[in-house]
Amino acid sequence: MSNEPTVDPKTMEKIVSLCKRRGFIFPSSEIYGGLASAWDYGPLGVELKNRLQRFWWREMTQLHDNIVGLDAAILMHPTVWKASGHVDSFSDTMVEDTVTNERYRWDHLTDEQRETKTSPKGNPLSEPREFNLMFKTHLGPASDSGSTVYLRPETAQGIYVNFKNVVQTSRVKIPFGIAQVGKAFRNEIVTKNFIFRTVEFEQMEMQYFVKPGEDDRWFEFWKAERLKYYEKLGIRQDHLRFEEHGPDELAHYAKAAFDIQYLFPFGWQELEGIHNRTDFDLARHSEFCGKEINYLDEETKERYIPYIVETSAGLTRSVLMVLSDAYEEEEVGENDVRTVLRFHPMIAPVQVGVFPLVKKDGLAEKAREIEMALREDFSTFYDQSGAIGRRYRRQDEIGTPFCVTIDYETMEQGTVTLRHRDSMEQERVSLGELGQRLREAIKSYRRADT
Amino acid sequence: MSNEPTVDPKTMEKIVSLCKRRGFIFPSSEIYGGLASAWDYGPLGVELKNRLQRFWWREMTQLHDNIVGLDAAILMHPTVWKASGHVDSFSDTMVEDTVTNERYRWDHLTDEQRETKTSPKGNPLSEPREFNLMFKTHLGPASDSGSTVYLRPETAQGIYVNFKNVVQTSRVKIPFGIAQVGKAFRNEIVTKNFIFRTVEFEQMEMQYFVKPGEDDRWFEFWKAERLKYYEKLGIRQDHLRFEEHGPDELAHYAKAAFDIQYLFPFGWQELEGIHNRTDFDLARHSEFCGKEINYLDEETKERYIPYIVETSAGLTRSVLMVLSDAYEEEEVGENDVRTVLRFHPMIAPVQVGVFPLVKKDGLAEKAREIEMALREDFSTFYDQSGAIGRRYRRQDEIGTPFCVTIDYETMEQGTVTLRHRDSMEQERVSLGELGQRLREAIKSYRRADT
Repeated sequence: MSNEPTVDPKTMEKIVSLCKRRGFIFPSSEIYGGLASAWDYGPLGVELKNRLQRFWWREMTQLHDNIVGLDAAILMHPTVWKASGHVDSFSDTMVEDTVTNERYRWDHLTDEQRETKTSPKGNPLSEPREFNLMFKTHLGPASDSGSTVYLRPETAQGIYVNFKNVVQTSRVKIPFGIAQVGKAFRNEIVTKNFIFRTVEFEQMEMQYFVKPGEDDRWFEFWKAERLKYYEKLGIRQDHLRFEEHGPDELAHYAKAAFDIQYLFPFGWQELEGIHNRTDFDLARHSEFCGKEINYLDEETKERYIPYIVETSAGLTRSVLMVLSDAYEEEEVGENDVRTVLRFHPMIAPVQVGVFPLVKKDGLAEKAREIEMALREDFSTFYDQSGAIGRRYRRQDEIGTPFCVTIDYETMEQGTVTLRHRDSMEQERVSLGELGQRLREAIKSYRRADT
Repeated sequence: MSNEPTVDPKTMEKIVSLCKRRGFIFPSSEIYGGLASAWDYGPLGVELKNRLQRFWWREMTQLHDNIVGLDAAILMHPTVWKASGHVDSFSDTMVEDTVTNERYRWDHLTDEQRETKTSPKGNPLSEPREFNLMFKTHLGPASDSGSTVYLRPETAQGIYVNFKNVVQTSRVKIPFGIAQVGKAFRNEIVTKNFIFRTVEFEQMEMQYFVKPGEDDRWFEFWKAERLKYYEKLGIRQDHLRFEEHGPDELAHYAKAAFDIQYLFPFGWQELEGIHNRTDFDLARHSEFCGKEINYLDEETKERYIPYIVETSAGLTRSVLMVLSDAYEEEEVGENDVRTVLRFHPMIAPVQVGVFPLVKKDGLAEKAREIEMALREDFSTFYDQSGAIGRRYRRQDEIGTPFCVTIDYETMEQGTVTLRHRDSMEQERVSLGELGQRLREAIKSYRRADT
């Protein structure tokens, strides 16, 4: 018997359906039939995504020594993408069906189709040609090649071109990092698996600048550190693994590369990449902009081009990861299965559901009053409709970790019922201690099965 | 004597210089000579922008009844922009110098140049033609008209096309609002005033859906509400005013429109627009998508297309506003002027500076320990270099509201010096009470001159 975790591919359908039904994620421009592989985040989805982003940002900057933030523009000088290699080599090889004009990726055809140069429709194919994955547009009124700009295909370059600005203004000393969250765009022909691979997506990247020779050590440090991050986020550890890029898989800029993979419902897939990019990027930008880009060690008076260890995670992909990891159908009694999203309370879209047991006798007003007070510190949801059990289940399904019920004892003794999502246990808490109790429960949260 | 506030136009240069020097804002792709009117947010700028965004989001969603969030994709179905009117009419009239091929906006030429049809260089001009301000690109491998998509020129449409999705999934009842923060892009020929008008910018919009007939009342409600928001943010009230759009200035979709203007160093300019958009947008989308977009009032069984009251603020523009509003050169003694940014502590990039009075005798270690503890709840900056007075001034210049100094009394009695940015007053606080004291000071903050 293997201890390998297993996944049910059907879970994916269920997650997509839950996301649509409860307002996490909608197809983009759905009333117009949708736009290929673009998605909009609904009321719960945007809270989940924002909180996940904030969790990462807080861990990487506020709680970490020597890491500062940055937010570079999406539109950058076009030479950036010459220096990075994207203009020349960020492309797929494509062929066209000479009859139907449909296009195919060369590496998606069968050996036979490639040999006979016939399309899946049986028609002759055009010669293969390179198709660049960067979206192009034009800045200014002229639409000539001189005005071409690109939607950035990755956020990392925005950090590299600002390396000197940050060193000069922020009193950082090597080793130090620059963190950034932002959108990137890739004109992928094949997008799939819901929000896993989309043309518009968000990255959470941290570029760590180190002294050459110390790069291997920092690479190992960041591998360990990033795994701890997922642990802190409450992700099931047996659903995470490292996958090393072999020598023939390494990108042209990389000395070493590990993916952190997550076991999605559709299998193991990349969640984050940790790369030793050497001095490739800064040296290239130095060459293309004609300026020295290096670092002066003020103690040793040594001047060098730093090496870069990068941790590059997808934010939109992380949203799918936490949804997959949190999703559970749990048998809680005879013929009773509840759907529950076991989000860490730090990222749950709603942190506290607030219910009056019944609407009458002033309970609704009291519940409203309690909700208003909790709002200052927590994201809340007020619900007074339906049986209390159904209200709990509705909150389970969107991952609300705590529910507070106001009943007759509240009016008499100033206590409420605090119900915990994971254990479904209930306890009485006095109103005066409720805020503090919730804060502690959020801080000390640990998922039972991790 | 008038009581009108005055501004010094030179303040703008000083702000731009401070922003560059201290790492708030850099020209985009600066090592490549910059990209016209694109800007990157450095370590302090990204914190300021993020905190401002979070402040708005918290006020508009978490603390507000009946407003939910959304985050739509930047790339939308192209028909969205036909329905919205942007494809047909979001354009400037341009002419070209027939000798130099330089382009000019028709309305920027002098009367004489327009009459004689000569360019500022004295050459004949081409016929005027319309130039659409939307950035165009192509989705998928074909670059033909069928694959054209646009970078959204505003975020509002992403809310309108999701109206039904939100109603169906979020149990909202009219009146309710949908809030969104996101990037938009306009291929403006003339950009100016630093980050005030840029081709890539961020909007913070809330669309409030109301019953027709109740729109005037809600319009007034939101005018008042948005002014209160700026007050809560600590903005000088005499630097804010309403400016009504006259009947001939109203956009085609608007029944009424007020700008909230702010007195920037370069004069009164729009900060936010409050618009009564009637049922124009939902009716147009209904027409173009061929589906009913309306709302069923479950109590009255009435079905109607809601009216929309919109509050549309610029996030990047708000960053410039809070910088302008916070900037002050204050005489604090003979020949002693300090530069101070009087940010509200909720949006200050650094909330607490932590300094050991001297490095020796364990003070540095103790200060580090205190900083580490404060990090959990506040954004901190540790500084041990230079005279203590200089360290305070460095924090004043970036708007840090509180500084904590660790001295020999800390080691003996467990107290620290808490220094307040605005008053420069200092008090002794015991370590056990420091966190709570800071939390209270943040919550109860009021700028002295507002």
